[in-house]
Amino acid sequence: MGNRKEGALLGKVRHVLFATGNRHKFQEAEMVFSEYGLSVERWDVKRLEIQSESLEDIARISLAWLMREAHPGCPFFVEDAGLFIEALNGFPGPYSSYVFSKIGNKGVLKLMDGVKDRKAKFVSVVAFTNGENVIVFKGEVSGFISYNVRGEYGFGFDPIFIPEDGDGRSFAELSVNEKNKLSHRAKAIRKLAEWLTSSKII
Amino acid sequence: MGNRKEGALLGKVRHVLFATGNRHKFQEAEMVFSEYGLSVERWDVKRLEIQSESLEDIARISLAWLMREAHPGCPFFVEDAGLFIEALNGFPGPYSSYVFSKIGNKGVLKLMDGVKDRKAKFVSVVAFTNGENVIVFKGEVSGFISYNVRGEYGFGFDPIFIPEDGDGRSFAELSVNEKNKLSHRAKAIRKLAEWLTSSKII
Repeated sequence: MGNRKEGALLGKVRHVLFATGNRHKFQEAEMVFSEYGLSVERWDVKRLEIQSESLEDIARISLAWLMREAHPGCPFFVEDAGLFIEALNGFPGPYSSYVFSKIGNKGVLKLMDGVKDRKAKFVSVVAFTNGENVIVFKGEVSGFISYNVRGEYGFGFDPIFIPEDGDGRSFAELSVNEKNKLSHRAKAIRKLAEWLTSSKII
Repeated sequence: MGNRKEGALLGKVRHVLFATGNRHKFQEAEMVFSEYGLSVERWDVKRLEIQSESLEDIARISLAWLMREAHPGCPFFVEDAGLFIEALNGFPGPYSSYVFSKIGNKGVLKLMDGVKDRKAKFVSVVAFTNGENVIVFKGEVSGFISYNVRGEYGFGFDPIFIPEDGDGRSFAELSVNEKNKLSHRAKAIRKLAEWLTSSKII
């Protein structure tokens, strides 16, 4: 990876690693990166995630831990995301993946049964490093919790989230391409891609 | 704290710190310790907790982090606990405190609405160190999720948990004294107290 590292030091990063165990997230990132002529490789590594209500803290510490314990000698990033439902005080938030694995979309719909305020947002935080410096990007999408499970695409809570700026379909009713035009994760990753292809040097 | 440290090295620990921000937990621990002629002091320190489905991993890493970052020069312990509801695949588990802060007892009762299998358990893990070695104790109590919120004592999910070996009252309908005869935390802390007052040397 000698050349890659040199590229990073010169601020001309063309290839990065995405430390994630989630193939859906990786696919979304790959598609955004390709728009910018950047390539991304999946780094399937065990990450440490702290308990916190701040996605930024979780992402920063996860990144710092990987930098210290297992730095790959190549620019890389981590991403943390969550669904924040207003009527549930932000639940499930940073613990969305755990909550999904335990009570699923049906559990969240049950909690929202009879609740009129359906407002929610998906938030994504990307933390990137060239091995020395760290930069963090955030993406958000506002929307609503649906009244039933809809669609087959995506993952997690996608079938119960209807983005505000869409055409009324849930995230799981959108193809990856369509979801990438709207999603929190695409927004955060696009910020990273734009930053990487700008003239800024870290 | 010179004498205390000496005591620890000799295996005759009489005074320990409990690193917790939770005054209810501290009160429960204090009462158990006093039965053994041990004194405990609250150490109100910021702890690092990782995201994990294993309470033991959370407690061990929390302890290790305090040992490295802020060791007080005195034997101390941390405790992590969770409510594991069978019909919800173990939810809320290690994230009980977060889930309680967001959806409360009412949220969990809503998730359990119409669910016949009410089985649940509270689990507590205590990780103790004399500054060098680490030992872990576990306490469990089986019971049921009630159909409504009951009682004013305790904290967290106590008002919706009915211990199997009790008289039908919820944890929140028991005084600290009564709860300490049954509770997961009292069991784990009692194991620690017994171990400290036995002849074992670490």
